[in-house]
Amino acid sequence: MEPVLFYGVPHGCSFGSIVALEWLGQPYRLHRIDMLSKRSEGFARVSPLGQTPAMIAPDGKPLTESLAILHNIAARGLDKGLGFAQGTREFDDLNWMLSYLHTTLHSDLGYGWNAYKLDEDDHAGKAFLRRLAREKSAEAYAYLQGVLEGREWLAGNTKTVADAYFIGIARWGEDLGLFDIARDFPGIHRHMARLEADPAVIFAHAIEDETPHRSSGGFCGQLTAQDLDARLAA
Amino acid sequence: MEPVLFYGVPHGCSFGSIVALEWLGQPYRLHRIDMLSKRSEGFARVSPLGQTPAMIAPDGKPLTESLAILHNIAARGLDKGLGFAQGTREFDDLNWMLSYLHTTLHSDLGYGWNAYKLDEDDHAGKAFLRRLAREKSAEAYAYLQGVLEGREWLAGNTKTVADAYFIGIARWGEDLGLFDIARDFPGIHRHMARLEADPAVIFAHAIEDETPHRSSGGFCGQLTAQDLDARLAA
Repeated sequence: MEPVLFYGVPHGCSFGSIVALEWLGQPYRLHRIDMLSKRSEGFARVSPLGQTPAMIAPDGKPLTESLAILHNIAARGLDKGLGFAQGTREFDDLNWMLSYLHTTLHSDLGYGWNAYKLDEDDHAGKAFLRRLAREKSAEAYAYLQGVLEGREWLAGNTKTVADAYFIGIARWGEDLGLFDIARDFPGIHRHMARLEADPAVIFAHAIEDETPHRSSGGFCGQLTAQDLDARLAA
Repeated sequence: MEPVLFYGVPHGCSFGSIVALEWLGQPYRLHRIDMLSKRSEGFARVSPLGQTPAMIAPDGKPLTESLAILHNIAARGLDKGLGFAQGTREFDDLNWMLSYLHTTLHSDLGYGWNAYKLDEDDHAGKAFLRRLAREKSAEAYAYLQGVLEGREWLAGNTKTVADAYFIGIARWGEDLGLFDIARDFPGIHRHMARLEADPAVIFAHAIEDETPHRSSGGFCGQLTAQDLDARLAA
């Protein structure tokens, strides 16, 4: 049966998995999770840690973690260049970029998100985490900007799941109020602007914002809570 | 030519890549990097960000990021069960575990390591980061302990690169003085003790500690600085 992606709002890193699924062009469904409440027995069964993205994979089993979900999509999209065959240099390079994005840019900006989890009146803690987020992610943005000077896409010669993942998390520097990306990292802004013009990215924004949307891939609609229960009982 | 792994001391997460290379059983060399100085022009060419592990891959090109290096080793070790064929559920499960280890346990303990990078007299900052490291990594250790209740290895039915990576970073909770793992997480301790008895892990410790060692894999010796220059000039 077609896979189901559980995406988180607002502005979850699952955005990248929606984009990658659109690029893949195979049938899939979505299920919306409000990360500020995220209570649903069905969701808890798919994602015991309550994290998005999570997926009911094409084999019917749960799969969590962005990198694992993107690898799953890439493996089904080798013919489209979304990923590369295991054992090739291109596979290595894609893994390098995915890992860098996840463990550096995502983690560094994560310091900023963690500031929101502190007690309301822990002003020193919040300021400290925001400073760490700014300092560390500035290095990551600058490094990625350098990478993009020498190539058109983040890994390989085509858009891959790395670009899909990037466009979901690169925006966080502005979401957190840390940077004006167009001014501070024009090379990053250029790559983001290019991706923002992609129909899959436009679609993913519309899905997040619940505005009218048009899939250029295999989107088969949102899965209702009842449908989810039925799928999980099967 | 045989790959070269640049491993960091003390107690780098590159430990896991040494273990995985031993399990692979194919020829490889090592090059030691003291992470407290890490100045070498050769190293900078292989790892521009100064991070370990880094590798001169079998194709002669640099490769950085633990996950990318472990994927490279796994792809060459499918017949040994170190990794799984792209597109299978086992591949998904291994990616899930690798990603969890890297983005949760590694990142959470990373808060503790970052405490050492603050100014000497920033006592509040250091205490704050250590508290975050303890709280967050306690959840990760507990979660992994739960995973290990239901299975013998972290991913699949054999030891994989995920177990190799795990044994290199799980020790950090004690290195940082956050936990007594045997007392606080007996299930984690059990898996660590099992891996500690593995000849590849014993070898990797001896390499880190510069004590007499015996490879049960394809270790061809350390690469000298001169050899490295020659390799990079080729």
